[in-house]
Amino acid sequence: MPTYKAPLRDIKFLMNELLGAPEQLGKMPYYAQNETADQDLLEQVLDEAARFVETELVPLNVVGDREGCVRHDDGEVTTPTGFKAAYRKYRDAGWPALDADPAFGGQGMPHLISNVLVEMMNSANVAWSMYPGLSHGAYSALHAVGSQELKDLYLPKLVSGEWTGTMCLTEPHAGTDLGIIRTKASDNGDGTYAITGTKIFISAGEHDMADNILHLVLARLDGSPQGTKGISLFLVPKYIPTADGKPGERNGVICGSLEHKMGINGNATAVLNFDGARGWLVGEINKGMNHMFIMMNAARLGTGLQGLGLGEVAYQNALTYAKDRTQMRHEPRVNPGEQADPIIVHPDVRRMLLTGKAYTEAGRALAMWLALSLDVEHHHTDEKARKEAADLVALLTPIAKAFMTDNGFNIAVQSQQVYGGHGFIKEWGMEQFVRDARIGQIYEGTNGIQALDLLGRKVLMDGGKKLQKLAATLQEFAEEHEGDEHIGDYVNQLGKAAQQLGSLTMVIGQKAMQEGGADEVNAAAVDYLRYFGHVVYGYLWARMAKVAQDRIDAGQDRDGFYLSKVQTAKFYFAKLFPETKALAATIKAGNESIAVDDKAVFGWEKALVGA
Amino acid sequence: MPTYKAPLRDIKFLMNELLGAPEQLGKMPYYAQNETADQDLLEQVLDEAARFVETELVPLNVVGDREGCVRHDDGEVTTPTGFKAAYRKYRDAGWPALDADPAFGGQGMPHLISNVLVEMMNSANVAWSMYPGLSHGAYSALHAVGSQELKDLYLPKLVSGEWTGTMCLTEPHAGTDLGIIRTKASDNGDGTYAITGTKIFISAGEHDMADNILHLVLARLDGSPQGTKGISLFLVPKYIPTADGKPGERNGVICGSLEHKMGINGNATAVLNFDGARGWLVGEINKGMNHMFIMMNAARLGTGLQGLGLGEVAYQNALTYAKDRTQMRHEPRVNPGEQADPIIVHPDVRRMLLTGKAYTEAGRALAMWLALSLDVEHHHTDEKARKEAADLVALLTPIAKAFMTDNGFNIAVQSQQVYGGHGFIKEWGMEQFVRDARIGQIYEGTNGIQALDLLGRKVLMDGGKKLQKLAATLQEFAEEHEGDEHIGDYVNQLGKAAQQLGSLTMVIGQKAMQEGGADEVNAAAVDYLRYFGHVVYGYLWARMAKVAQDRIDAGQDRDGFYLSKVQTAKFYFAKLFPETKALAATIKAGNESIAVDDKAVFGWEKALVGA
Repeated sequence: MPTYKAPLRDIKFLMNELLGAPEQLGKMPYYAQNETADQDLLEQVLDEAARFVETELVPLNVVGDREGCVRHDDGEVTTPTGFKAAYRKYRDAGWPALDADPAFGGQGMPHLISNVLVEMMNSANVAWSMYPGLSHGAYSALHAVGSQELKDLYLPKLVSGEWTGTMCLTEPHAGTDLGIIRTKASDNGDGTYAITGTKIFISAGEHDMADNILHLVLARLDGSPQGTKGISLFLVPKYIPTADGKPGERNGVICGSLEHKMGINGNATAVLNFDGARGWLVGEINKGMNHMFIMMNAARLGTGLQGLGLGEVAYQNALTYAKDRTQMRHEPRVNPGEQADPIIVHPDVRRMLLTGKAYTEAGRALAMWLALSLDVEHHHTDEKARKEAADLVALLTPIAKAFMTDNGFNIAVQSQQVYGGHGFIKEWGMEQFVRDARIGQIYEGTNGIQALDLLGRKVLMDGGKKLQKLAATLQEFAEEHEGDEHIGDYVNQLGKAAQQLGSLTMVIGQKAMQEGGADEVNAAAVDYLRYFGHVVYGYLWARMAKVAQDRIDAGQDRDGFYLSKVQTAKFYFAKLFPETKALAATIKAGNESIAVDDKAVFGWEKALVGA
Repeated sequence: MPTYKAPLRDIKFLMNELLGAPEQLGKMPYYAQNETADQDLLEQVLDEAARFVETELVPLNVVGDREGCVRHDDGEVTTPTGFKAAYRKYRDAGWPALDADPAFGGQGMPHLISNVLVEMMNSANVAWSMYPGLSHGAYSALHAVGSQELKDLYLPKLVSGEWTGTMCLTEPHAGTDLGIIRTKASDNGDGTYAITGTKIFISAGEHDMADNILHLVLARLDGSPQGTKGISLFLVPKYIPTADGKPGERNGVICGSLEHKMGINGNATAVLNFDGARGWLVGEINKGMNHMFIMMNAARLGTGLQGLGLGEVAYQNALTYAKDRTQMRHEPRVNPGEQADPIIVHPDVRRMLLTGKAYTEAGRALAMWLALSLDVEHHHTDEKARKEAADLVALLTPIAKAFMTDNGFNIAVQSQQVYGGHGFIKEWGMEQFVRDARIGQIYEGTNGIQALDLLGRKVLMDGGKKLQKLAATLQEFAEEHEGDEHIGDYVNQLGKAAQQLGSLTMVIGQKAMQEGGADEVNAAAVDYLRYFGHVVYGYLWARMAKVAQDRIDAGQDRDGFYLSKVQTAKFYFAKLFPETKALAATIKAGNESIAVDDKAVFGWEKALVGA
């Protein structure tokens, strides 16, 4: 059975030493007022979060996978044994309120902290964590664009955790392509709307853990235009609240079935049938897609954290196994006189472990950097600082989602590989990490869609401004440290790659503007995102190595933590960063080799290209 | 539900046009005598194999996954619904005898043909295919080193398929490290041995499909030396045959339990307890490891074919889905007037599909080349030709196993990705391909072990002779075609990579000979195998493109098949082959960044490296 210990040492290093977060947060009146920027307090909360996660959620992970959820004939759903009780403890401990607005009962803690909580929860139990995770998205959307009336009624319930939320976007024929959804809304003339349609793949869509479920539903209001410009966002509660805020009349939304899935079995993935259900408009008519992106961007970061958390826990267990399992002998021997040495002696096993460690720690640095940037975006007093933070978050969110879930899946697979045949056996638990990690690459916009969002929307559509801003940050760092005895080599590699990223962007942009060049963006996007991800991780590894080396030089490395950072950075640049060499070549190759003759190559009668 | 059509057109292209197999086989007296080299006959057999596989095995694939195998209290095992009946049809049609020796009832067909049958069976149903697959390994070992008495008694039963075989190697504490197995053999003094011990992970280890099961068991005879030099191979039948060759007395081997696995659920992965079971020595005392490698090499190619077959079927289904599923619009529109276009229009979807196609078709070319080489190794009249073929098979077997299963898994994952959210849902069947493909990277020697076998044993230990021979073949091909209008560019890339492979080999070899350099081989092996794999696939793609282009130039491309080959070759060199650039860098980086301080980085108290 897998185990998990929250990586508090690394988290505190990133928070305090890499990001200097308490100091930055302390300068923002919001956190100063709420007294939620104090380093000791932040660390205490992290310690407490770790305890909760390790004690309550870890033991339920396998249970959730084996039992799954059960839908009853009346459409109600029972979650796996222990899920409801753990949620009750989570609620009672006030975790749902952590980073919520004090005006609605929240604790006003920084996103930085809730981000870490979510990472830990995902390491412990992704399927369970998705129930409160979806609530968080619903909270964000309502908080940002809901009417005061809706906010006053619903936000305190989400903040207390009494009620949970969902995101109802996908339909059987419309996944990526939300512009073609068929769910309808009709004005009831009393301030409510009648919602009718079928939504699928609704995570946490029905369950027994909360007293009410608030569905945030994309639908087309009668008479609205076709396409994405005619979509509005509605709040459809499972139970319509009474005047005093209790769950009242049962609404016309019912769980038609649950999906049988490869993984995250403990989460109820529901088909929801809306049959004239009463809904309330959230935000403006026909602005549903914009409003939905408030939830979606949060969900994308949250999905990235699933990749991060699963990578961490898979790595931790592979490391333990590699120290315990003895097989073959190494020269020099580690266990002289015994039959075999621990497999961690074998370089290829170490390579797999270090890959997990290097990707995970860089991913954590990225996630925490973005979470702190969200705090700046929302609460900094300087408008320019807010705008810059918002741009950074916008630019790096698709990387956080796609790069972290791709790496998380690959780490889960490699960590399973460390176990040899035992990795394939359910009882060891490693194969569950692989199955659970797989969905992160698919949902909340496939990783291909993330890549298009990055290259098409975030980079090319604003003429490369966000990219240039980040490149300037990197350039400044590179110039400052290019002669550094320890990180100079990394900084040089990084500087070259950042330059090449710029020139690759230009090449793609130019091709895209040529006649018939529209496909060039789509053809390059996935490789481009991966290249970009390495530039970001390379930057973070160089920075981490610098901070750590300074500690070592000052004689402050008591437990070897800083040496570990320095050596993992070295591994990253030696063994992982060189992937950029292949990516540069495949990006340059463009769409030409992809634009094959459809009939000849794919036997496709409609044939986009070819005879 | 997934579908499958055997890729007969491609198979016949490779057999007849790329390899010229009928002509080569026809020159060998063994096939000439048996009349099994005729092109029409070979094609008929392939057509018949496709029919059997598509009709009988495909429908059972999901059944096997859902039902799994059931062990009863008496240790007997029931296979999933339909498995036994399909096996009966397989037996009755004579498929187990296909490439077996006519002296024991076989049909004397080339390995080339049984190789294709196995690929098809793996596409259709890996779990089912492992029951006869393991028999084949047992047949090979008995045929090669068994006494005439054992051969006369057992081989006809394996050839007819009445009885099946297993390979019993792994023990709870000994997987890769077979030298430390504890299963014992004691001489009974009557020509038999008493075998006692526990074997785990025994595929097809117990089932209800055959009348008897022949376990080939590694054990240490009393008084034999420790390590791999004291291991012998024994045949332990489940039922001891009577004098007239019927299953007789029940032997002391029993299935203690079945594993719960990530995939291949239809195959019974057994814990087998041997309690003084009667066994017969196979081959020589203390030569068990050598004899076992006869089975193991066959099993490694067979495992590679699992990766190949699963890649093929996953690709086929993703292709169908990509043509059917409409989502988003492309300019120019494919479905003008309709809401959306088929997703196959999107370059990133095409990229995923072409990746599957390019790896699969090169893999098939490799597998068939090796299978034909096995035919040459066993049946050519010229000793030099036999030796060269044997060397080629030895060199490329680890690549066929590891590169094909790694690629097969990745294709399954990417093909699942084409389905978006539906790929994660069990009913669509794509996630089963991913789960089933995962084991190929792990068993029959993990892919890390394959890489060590390649670099350490097959390349460095013979001073690079086998590698040089292959390099000469490539060089000759490259020189012949370097100015070719169509494949000249590929050939140049290939020539450079082949040269670099040689220099990388030298670099590793030199490092390995230095003080403390033993870890360098282990550190480089996995990346080296992948680099080598690309050189081999690049060679095969260049050759396929050449044959195809000549057909096109001769006006013989009626159905676009040859154009498809030419364009897929182009994709391969543009988008997949450049991985070699990254691999060259990581290979050169060697062990230095891996030899981290164990205590600091891994918290490992025993510490190989560091304080």
